[in-house]
Amino acid sequence: MGIINFKHRISIISAATSAGKKECEGPLGEIFDCIDKTDRFDAETWEKSESEMQRRALGAAIDKAGISKNEIGALYAGDLLNQCIGSCFGLVSYELPFFGIYGACSTLGEGLMLASLMLDSGHASICAAACSSHNCSAERQFRFPLEYGGQRPPTAQWTVTGAAAYILSSKEKGGYASIGSALVGIAVDGGIKDANNMGAAMAPAAADTLLRYFEESGESPADYDLILTGDLGFEGSELLKIIAHKRGLELGGVHNDCGRIIYHKDKQDVHSGGSGCGCSGIVFGSYILPKLLSGEIKKMLLCPTGALMNTASVQQGQSILGICHLLKIEAPQ
Amino acid sequence: MGIINFKHRISIISAATSAGKKECEGPLGEIFDCIDKTDRFDAETWEKSESEMQRRALGAAIDKAGISKNEIGALYAGDLLNQCIGSCFGLVSYELPFFGIYGACSTLGEGLMLASLMLDSGHASICAAACSSHNCSAERQFRFPLEYGGQRPPTAQWTVTGAAAYILSSKEKGGYASIGSALVGIAVDGGIKDANNMGAAMAPAAADTLLRYFEESGESPADYDLILTGDLGFEGSELLKIIAHKRGLELGGVHNDCGRIIYHKDKQDVHSGGSGCGCSGIVFGSYILPKLLSGEIKKMLLCPTGALMNTASVQQGQSILGICHLLKIEAPQ
Repeated sequence: MGIINFKHRISIISAATSAGKKECEGPLGEIFDCIDKTDRFDAETWEKSESEMQRRALGAAIDKAGISKNEIGALYAGDLLNQCIGSCFGLVSYELPFFGIYGACSTLGEGLMLASLMLDSGHASICAAACSSHNCSAERQFRFPLEYGGQRPPTAQWTVTGAAAYILSSKEKGGYASIGSALVGIAVDGGIKDANNMGAAMAPAAADTLLRYFEESGESPADYDLILTGDLGFEGSELLKIIAHKRGLELGGVHNDCGRIIYHKDKQDVHSGGSGCGCSGIVFGSYILPKLLSGEIKKMLLCPTGALMNTASVQQGQSILGICHLLKIEAPQ
Repeated sequence: MGIINFKHRISIISAATSAGKKECEGPLGEIFDCIDKTDRFDAETWEKSESEMQRRALGAAIDKAGISKNEIGALYAGDLLNQCIGSCFGLVSYELPFFGIYGACSTLGEGLMLASLMLDSGHASICAAACSSHNCSAERQFRFPLEYGGQRPPTAQWTVTGAAAYILSSKEKGGYASIGSALVGIAVDGGIKDANNMGAAMAPAAADTLLRYFEESGESPADYDLILTGDLGFEGSELLKIIAHKRGLELGGVHNDCGRIIYHKDKQDVHSGGSGCGCSGIVFGSYILPKLLSGEIKKMLLCPTGALMNTASVQQGQSILGICHLLKIEAPQ
């Protein structure tokens, strides 16, 4: 299956984000909807904090859309925690038809894509997608508890404390933006085994998806105002450009990456930038969508990236697989 | 969103299963496609064994369907391992557009549903769904390494060592069966906190989905030859009947559960029966589908059930959430 061109107009009618202290201290400032600078969100454990961030983000997105929760036909959500408990426990109180998804940090892309497909099938007219990551729950699950004070190499990225929820509709003409096309990611094994270099593991997948997209569409990067990858960070973004260049695709100045945007590279000690489902989730929702609404960005590709692995697969010597989903997004009009 | 009635005819054109020793020694015998009585499937770790089971199941399903892998528009897969590595690593070599899903043991239902929706949208004409569980990888991840020899209470279930893959098509008229309708599960918190009683945690979700289905459709259990839940086991199946009865729904003799079917209750020391994504995956694929093909079963409801939790959520005192997806499946004609 190649590019999916949606038959119906799929509009993003609202988005809302939750974010923590470090995210609010970054270049984007306090643009997020639900902020808690203790990162705790009134919960007693980091895992429960992450769930609460998703709960608040979806609640705010529903309010912004001016709908009742029961108008949502289906909800797609996932996160980085084992068995996706951030989403399950965070969203259970909404009592909505629920599809749990796992795409690592590409979850935003997978959720928006599946929601758009449901709307395009005509079986629902409003759907929602949500995702989250929390630095403290991710650190202790994938690496070390914070108290250990582990050293991080220069290629390591900082997991974003953030959650995002989006409401999509096939019946509203307006909204922040519309999703016209999509290309489903294919898992790519680039042979990277360094769990402190996720950017390198995901860059081949981003290149694969973009090359497939431009080859089939006949378009070029110059046709877009922005090609926004998810969380390749500084290291992975450079690798993406090198891989794409070698295969004849010049991304030029039109490429950026949410992992490069979310933090101050030098001042915030984040090394290679941001990562996590929340990275593309909150950067796209709170920083990019308003630019689509205002028309500053007219046409863009959103390409959330994910690294498929767990601690056991790394310990057992497996490569880290990459995946990248692509959505073509346009300003409303 | 209520019941989804697919506009196109969605056919299951093939299914293939992998299974281990205990499954082959159960009442169903050696009916599975890819059997390894060492449970290892030529892999060096249990996690890699689980991946290999999925890889073999999908390969066998593709062969049975008489298609080439590149005809598959999208692949939906998930499992119980952290970050769904059973699926990611098992299926990466097929290089297919990939949607990672997480529905715990309801993954078969979620995958068949999403694949059917993709076909119904018209954007693909062939899709695949896969799932797996492995007793040894699950035991050491969720409970104890096998060597520990942990005691199991009577309500505990035995995670099935099994993987299944299904090929669905919207262009073929025949096949083993057709999927006519679906109802998406809603996560239900029944307040169960005992990680050794998953049946009790899932029974309220199964009741919720069945009650919603019969209320909206106006049908009754007597309209079906079989209502097959996923892995409620002996304990959960009894609880489902009690909960349904209290809410005015009599399931009667038409209900059965894959967790009751897969093992000999007394001879195999499985206590409350089978569980895991592989439980409904291999029972439906290798035991029930042939009965649909032969016409012995004409109309059934397949209701895979899942328990949404992880070890941290249980340790932190959270309830175990249940979810149950429903598919209406009919014999081909």
